[in-house]
Amino acid sequence: MGFTELWESLLPIGRYGPAGGYRRYSFTGTDSDCRQWFRKTAARRGLRAEHDRNGNLWAWWDVQDPAGGAIVTGSHLDSVPDGGAYDGPLGVVSAFAALDLLRERGLTPRRPVAVAAFCEEEGARFGVACLGSRLLTGAIEPADARRLADGDGVRLAEAMRGAGLDPAAIGPDDVLLDGIAAYVELHIEQGTALAGLDAAVGLAAGIWPHGRWLLEFTGRADHAGTTRISDRRDPMLPFAATVLAARRAAARHGALATVGKVIAEPGAANAISSAVRCWLDARAPDEATLERLTAEISAAAQAAAGEHQVAVSVRQESVTVPVQFDPGLRDQLAAALAARDIAAPVLPTGAGHDAGVLAARLPTAMLFVRNPSGVSHSPREHAGPADCEAGVAALAAVLEELAFR
Amino acid sequence: MGFTELWESLLPIGRYGPAGGYRRYSFTGTDSDCRQWFRKTAARRGLRAEHDRNGNLWAWWDVQDPAGGAIVTGSHLDSVPDGGAYDGPLGVVSAFAALDLLRERGLTPRRPVAVAAFCEEEGARFGVACLGSRLLTGAIEPADARRLADGDGVRLAEAMRGAGLDPAAIGPDDVLLDGIAAYVELHIEQGTALAGLDAAVGLAAGIWPHGRWLLEFTGRADHAGTTRISDRRDPMLPFAATVLAARRAAARHGALATVGKVIAEPGAANAISSAVRCWLDARAPDEATLERLTAEISAAAQAAAGEHQVAVSVRQESVTVPVQFDPGLRDQLAAALAARDIAAPVLPTGAGHDAGVLAARLPTAMLFVRNPSGVSHSPREHAGPADCEAGVAALAAVLEELAFR
Repeated sequence: MGFTELWESLLPIGRYGPAGGYRRYSFTGTDSDCRQWFRKTAARRGLRAEHDRNGNLWAWWDVQDPAGGAIVTGSHLDSVPDGGAYDGPLGVVSAFAALDLLRERGLTPRRPVAVAAFCEEEGARFGVACLGSRLLTGAIEPADARRLADGDGVRLAEAMRGAGLDPAAIGPDDVLLDGIAAYVELHIEQGTALAGLDAAVGLAAGIWPHGRWLLEFTGRADHAGTTRISDRRDPMLPFAATVLAARRAAARHGALATVGKVIAEPGAANAISSAVRCWLDARAPDEATLERLTAEISAAAQAAAGEHQVAVSVRQESVTVPVQFDPGLRDQLAAALAARDIAAPVLPTGAGHDAGVLAARLPTAMLFVRNPSGVSHSPREHAGPADCEAGVAALAAVLEELAFR
Repeated sequence: MGFTELWESLLPIGRYGPAGGYRRYSFTGTDSDCRQWFRKTAARRGLRAEHDRNGNLWAWWDVQDPAGGAIVTGSHLDSVPDGGAYDGPLGVVSAFAALDLLRERGLTPRRPVAVAAFCEEEGARFGVACLGSRLLTGAIEPADARRLADGDGVRLAEAMRGAGLDPAAIGPDDVLLDGIAAYVELHIEQGTALAGLDAAVGLAAGIWPHGRWLLEFTGRADHAGTTRISDRRDPMLPFAATVLAARRAAARHGALATVGKVIAEPGAANAISSAVRCWLDARAPDEATLERLTAEISAAAQAAAGEHQVAVSVRQESVTVPVQFDPGLRDQLAAALAARDIAAPVLPTGAGHDAGVLAARLPTAMLFVRNPSGVSHSPREHAGPADCEAGVAALAAVLEELAFR
């Protein structure tokens, strides 16, 4: 099966609403459909599918007398709310397609090769991005993870049990990790750098440090029609001031700050809110800048809250240190691509990935595929078919270099 | 049964969450419990309970050979999300309690008297405040009302059918209205004017004109970690600017403007929103000021949207013209209260009420009961027991004046 057919076999799963976006949330029925797709795809190729103790999926091309540790490639299948088709799935589909390409050429690996699909990479259900790879590497405590709850109050432990997984078993897995020599993740670019450079594929330099903060403004619910302005303690106002302050601070620091999620309680059109909760996503080229950026936003939130007699709390929900992908591995991949006349410029990125989490434990690398509009986390996210094929060819070249010779 | 016991018999219905607020939404199971309470309360008093074609409840004290049109008193039983116990129910409970008081004194009415409870006064489920009284008086087209949908997409027609009502029958009811000589609504004050005047009860002068506007900012969903600031079309930013502009404009005009409900789509912490919808509640002492206020807020929304390359639409969802309660009726009630040594200062209000809608068709009046903190639409809304008893006594005096002599 070529890339296109395989790609199209996954497309219908979890498509939602008229805009054609995706809602593939971890441990739901849709997620179960994605997992079945993964197992079926592996089985058709004679790959041994399994899930690890954290629910991440693996499809193994086993070898007798391996020449070294395993080479793993993959990405994730979950989506943000109303996300696009490519972010995550392109890496998983391309991994299977790249192995097909190598097999068609009569090649067999000299060490184990696996396709991986990590759980809850987007953190869309439980709020912690890259949860599957964080659990695997010990970057989050299993007890803390089990207590995570989704928007309906369902805890991770309960959701995993519902998906036939054992939440008591989650946690770091050194045996699995010790057997892996390198992880290479292919991903659609979430910007327009490759388009600007006229290149179909690129290699990742590193990932900006980034994090997520929960800001909670607590005021006092009151009648919108009768409470004098001077008597109001309306949390919507300092929230709004903080949204604008965050944008200004990000521009000042050459960084990024986004508020994409807000919940006003009780949420009545004719009542002053009792509380407004929002999530700040902040990213910067280096840790010192990220720290200055978030300190300034936090100070602006405090000042605005004080002005409106509203309380505010700022809590860091997650933070990811900057990642420099393994330079030796990257140079090896660049050379292998160059030898096949594949130009692959090296790019930084502001997006987090499982490859970034795994980089703390393994040599990791990333391949990006051109995204002409740069749009991501949106139904309008798109990569051209020729660029997707180029991504598969580049990934095959990289896997051949690492595992088949 | 005295006021307190009757009050406490209603209190448990629809109480929700640790803060002790109420979620009594129209045509739900909780609403059905409220309706049963109303029917049982009427039956115990020998009052004839019925619902009109719009689902509003009536409990009739019928008389032979009436001396004139009916005198109706009451309010509503539905609540805003996490509202207080008093807004609405105090008027219904006080109405029954006032009739008890008159009966205990051996009085019988010379014309029909009814206790009414109007549907969907808060508009918390279907977005149109005073829906029951608007339908009754023809202030909203039945076809438009049937199409109203709640947050889950359930239409009014479907919800009414689910509650055993016939949505095909809704609409103005002149026979019912022609039989009513006056409507008097008792309500907890939603401000602190009575507290400042050291009075337990007051009479309403009029209701400020007010309305609700839906503002929809449409940008472009994008990845929060990779989309350059200059490439963003983030609707959260002009939304935030508009919230602040609305407050400034309200202060400038001696008016009120509140944004208490906001929905960001898709609502992911790591994605730029595709759209932000919010509802503006605006009120002013007169219509010209309300018009200037909302024009300025709309202009500020347009300007902020333009700055961020975001589209914005502003749509009026409802508007209520200013109400002057019937001066003759008010003078009659003031005299009746004064004759019993009850001081009842006359107050304006920014809140809408069924009495305001009915004022277009009938002589109407309102009695307010002191609210020491002024807090309303909140679990912290409160009136003291002595003030509630004073409200019942004042309402009994008023009903005696209008119907029992």
